[in-house]
Amino acid sequence: MIRIGLVGVGKIAHDQHIPALAGDKRFQLVAAASRSLPDLGGIPVFYDIDEMLAKGPELDAVALCTPPQARRETALAALRAGKHVFLEKPPGATVSEVAELAAVAREHGVVLFTSWHSRFAAGVPQAKAWLASRHVRKLTIEWREDVRRWHPGQTWIWQAGGMGVFDPAINALSILTEIMPAEVFVTDAKLQVPENVQSPIAGHVDMTTLGGMAITADLDFLQTGPQTWDITAWTEDGVLKLSLGGAELTIDGTAVEVGENREYPGLYDRFATLIAEGRSEVDVRPLTLVADAFMVGTREVVEAFIE
Amino acid sequence: MIRIGLVGVGKIAHDQHIPALAGDKRFQLVAAASRSLPDLGGIPVFYDIDEMLAKGPELDAVALCTPPQARRETALAALRAGKHVFLEKPPGATVSEVAELAAVAREHGVVLFTSWHSRFAAGVPQAKAWLASRHVRKLTIEWREDVRRWHPGQTWIWQAGGMGVFDPAINALSILTEIMPAEVFVTDAKLQVPENVQSPIAGHVDMTTLGGMAITADLDFLQTGPQTWDITAWTEDGVLKLSLGGAELTIDGTAVEVGENREYPGLYDRFATLIAEGRSEVDVRPLTLVADAFMVGTREVVEAFIE
Repeated sequence: MIRIGLVGVGKIAHDQHIPALAGDKRFQLVAAASRSLPDLGGIPVFYDIDEMLAKGPELDAVALCTPPQARRETALAALRAGKHVFLEKPPGATVSEVAELAAVAREHGVVLFTSWHSRFAAGVPQAKAWLASRHVRKLTIEWREDVRRWHPGQTWIWQAGGMGVFDPAINALSILTEIMPAEVFVTDAKLQVPENVQSPIAGHVDMTTLGGMAITADLDFLQTGPQTWDITAWTEDGVLKLSLGGAELTIDGTAVEVGENREYPGLYDRFATLIAEGRSEVDVRPLTLVADAFMVGTREVVEAFIE
Repeated sequence: MIRIGLVGVGKIAHDQHIPALAGDKRFQLVAAASRSLPDLGGIPVFYDIDEMLAKGPELDAVALCTPPQARRETALAALRAGKHVFLEKPPGATVSEVAELAAVAREHGVVLFTSWHSRFAAGVPQAKAWLASRHVRKLTIEWREDVRRWHPGQTWIWQAGGMGVFDPAINALSILTEIMPAEVFVTDAKLQVPENVQSPIAGHVDMTTLGGMAITADLDFLQTGPQTWDITAWTEDGVLKLSLGGAELTIDGTAVEVGENREYPGLYDRFATLIAEGRSEVDVRPLTLVADAFMVGTREVVEAFIE
């Protein structure tokens, strides 16, 4: 039994982590830390990780669901206390700090898992297998959602380091880097930033591989009505399409049976396996693509965003 | 004798690469490529790398001095043609693409050298040796120069991906990542971007190590009069200061004898050694710090820049 503590009890913890942990017999949620001190029905809740580590029950692992800007210090405290660490995506505010956390995990003989939940969407493993033996000619990402619906009150997303529309779009980039047989990099980007915030509300990213494949990502945070989380790959054998963030897969318009979408149960299954094997899984490629897009991207100031 | 071709015959090629190659007996500059087709006094000059590789004399190596936005395709052509490649700093427009170029170099059995000329400034090796056995309490970078004096007509520096004031400041970051015993990462940044361009003209970057050291960088592209390229490190044994971009070293105000500043001869000496040993040297840490600063930095729009 892996005794786990949860740090950051916000929307994603309530919606995903707590139910996933409740459904996995290998884990027992024994403590949490959150400055708002929410009532978690009998599970002791502490103000922050230091208090949880000092005064809480014995822990084997910690899952961090705090916003990325504050994740490094918390992760460091957990790793140095000898706990295995599960990082919600993105694994940190910067690319460089994640490499350093990986070094600390090695030093302390514990497991670090940089989780990317969209890679565990139902259609992703089959999409990866299907593309592995085919030549992708072109790939498009369309990631358009309504920020007011999915990120209510999440002001951190608009602050510097909050990534704006790249907070959801990094999910697409995590699928892209999982299913593509070749490594991908950014060649150009256009970022639309509302005049009253720091992070983009929409964007377009051009990417390629050394083979010269055309990969584009169209990102929008203001789409009302039907929401779009699609990745489409054109190959010599037909068109593969992942929809609903990877939950659905079609090939040439025909649905492929992929089973139930169980992203967070999948993540915790992987975390349990990594702990059992004493092996870390650290992948910063999606975050590196975002950093590269911010570095090379052209910015355009657009209308203020008022939630 | 290493027969070398130079791609991009601009200011840095004339000021540094051509004299350094002329002074190193292991190299022979046998061709160049530049869209402006400059007269290089008997050395054949081609329009671009493809023409140079197809029609020029036999080459063993290629040095790339083109702006970073265009470097990847050129590097790829050279590596695939089986040439050793010397990349002027920064080694690419993005972090991800450099990792891919390293993979291509391995595949083709040639050497890739991501050069950082400031690491070869006269004071840097002794600064590194002195700091290795000491605890740095605080470190400051002050990098303030006059863009009109050092980068006349270099419009690419202001375009997206041109990095603005980070084009010189990456030299400081290359020294920082060379002399610091611990890995460094960005925690916060403020970027001042003129209203008529895409890249910052000034900035402040807060960095740290997992040990929690305070590292700051103050960057300015509008300093007239005396120019400042200083790195100062406070330790329990005194204050180390690298000045003039690393050319001068003092400890507690006393000058240390460091010899003549020979950055580009030092770079070509290293490149010749790497070729002889069949070993690549690829370090993207300075570029990763810049990408991270762009990703987490707060932007402020400032007065237009008119050269």
